[in-house]
Amino acid sequence: MDFKQQLDNYVNTINEYIDKCVIEKELPEKSLYSAMRYSLTAGGKRLRPVLSLAVCDMLGGNAQEVLPFACAVEMIHTYSLIHDDLPAMDNDDFRRGRPTNHKVYGEALAILAGDGLLNLAFETMLESIIKNGDSERKAKAAAVIAKASGANGMISGQVIDLESEGKQVDKDILNRMHRLKTGALIKAPVVSAAILCGACEDDIEKLDEFAENLGLAFQIKDDILDVEGSTEKLGKKVGSDAGNNKSTYVSLYGLEKSKEILSDVTHKAVRCLEKFGDKAAFLKSLAGYLLEREN
Amino acid sequence: MDFKQQLDNYVNTINEYIDKCVIEKELPEKSLYSAMRYSLTAGGKRLRPVLSLAVCDMLGGNAQEVLPFACAVEMIHTYSLIHDDLPAMDNDDFRRGRPTNHKVYGEALAILAGDGLLNLAFETMLESIIKNGDSERKAKAAAVIAKASGANGMISGQVIDLESEGKQVDKDILNRMHRLKTGALIKAPVVSAAILCGACEDDIEKLDEFAENLGLAFQIKDDILDVEGSTEKLGKKVGSDAGNNKSTYVSLYGLEKSKEILSDVTHKAVRCLEKFGDKAAFLKSLAGYLLEREN
Repeated sequence: MDFKQQLDNYVNTINEYIDKCVIEKELPEKSLYSAMRYSLTAGGKRLRPVLSLAVCDMLGGNAQEVLPFACAVEMIHTYSLIHDDLPAMDNDDFRRGRPTNHKVYGEALAILAGDGLLNLAFETMLESIIKNGDSERKAKAAAVIAKASGANGMISGQVIDLESEGKQVDKDILNRMHRLKTGALIKAPVVSAAILCGACEDDIEKLDEFAENLGLAFQIKDDILDVEGSTEKLGKKVGSDAGNNKSTYVSLYGLEKSKEILSDVTHKAVRCLEKFGDKAAFLKSLAGYLLEREN
Repeated sequence: MDFKQQLDNYVNTINEYIDKCVIEKELPEKSLYSAMRYSLTAGGKRLRPVLSLAVCDMLGGNAQEVLPFACAVEMIHTYSLIHDDLPAMDNDDFRRGRPTNHKVYGEALAILAGDGLLNLAFETMLESIIKNGDSERKAKAAAVIAKASGANGMISGQVIDLESEGKQVDKDILNRMHRLKTGALIKAPVVSAAILCGACEDDIEKLDEFAENLGLAFQIKDDILDVEGSTEKLGKKVGSDAGNNKSTYVSLYGLEKSKEILSDVTHKAVRCLEKFGDKAAFLKSLAGYLLEREN
């Protein structure tokens, strides 16, 4: 199977699972599920859960066991976008080519839909933890995800982002922000999947390093796309970083140097996969695919 | 030890544990922990974690094992208050006698502090689940809490509340709203503690019924205090339900009938504890204490 086919397979598996997690309920709470569903099924690359499934396949693990955790990360990612888009935060009107959640459902329901998705991520993982044994290992995977998404992970990154607005920050702060805001939730699906598959310490360490570099590459590419991309392909406004006077790789290093770093970091990520041989083919292709992406 | 001493002991144990969960961090994320800490250490009755510890003592369980789950419920309760007070939701300026979170830290940070506390609740429980064995039982307790706080529990109740604003709803909807918005997170600490202590199905069922009635009594009392209470003692504005044209027990049944129902429901709660004999003394006193409370 070629890369693109495999990617489609993963995305379909993920979308099917996610679809069942947010079935619309009857009144009076209908609107809550509708709002949760609106953002969770809005498409997107599904990069985070794809990473989990690909790691699982590479390590010969059980995809059915990994799937709830993979999709939990996507729920967390989605809730963070809903809250991030709110008027009090980035105040964005479009996301993935559609009006943002609060533009459709209003601010109050958007806040609650975000809360609901974060909570649902843990409901989904806990349900899986108490089923079919092996609770401790599964709880360890969930703990990795919880830490990555919390006040020592992603949320911290959002606070740094918030507090850096309107001023140029130095490279250390920028890297810290990216590592927390984006990197943590790219690393978590990789590492948690490896734990679920019973990987040895050495393998987990290599995959951790792979994901660290991939996350950084992902963010640099985002910064570049905000300058060079098209609003149509991105599904959101281009140039918003500069407009908000945000520090980015491009504003700190310039466009050419940023592209150089992006290429370096991507190759570094791929090199971390050497020890897994041919089985890492999909993940290597994925790194290249993210390097070339237009959205 | 008399009731009041025992209550103080529980509250001190809870406050000590909570205090360690939100130690302020260094810059640049200092403000996030500061905002989380502001609301989590603002006092309050600590009713939910007290219920967990009291159930644990009654059943002869290990309080150290129950404590992280008890405090996780308090974190969830606190996050829900922060988000509930936001301008887009109830737009409240005061809570527990102090300015609300967003009044001190701004809306963006208040949203993130709420997110951080919800996430911290699950981090805290998962950390406990992977420590010292017995993962499956502990995960079952966490799953009960997760369900109670999610889109099929508390958050649903908030949505009903939101959508009922400005109109009088019928008794069924009012009861459903209370059961979800307040009741679910009063039941969860009771039932999860019973699970952690290895209680039998029959005991769990009785405690579930106890908590169901206690939760209802709690809400009816809240509705009465909003009419009869003093702003000073409550630490928040009195008369806000009527001001917002909200349906309450008082608006549907009148003040006298509401007091009658409150007394009935409280006695019903106490009767559920009969089978636990003298060991239930604290919980019975607690029900009476909540009936007479002034805030």
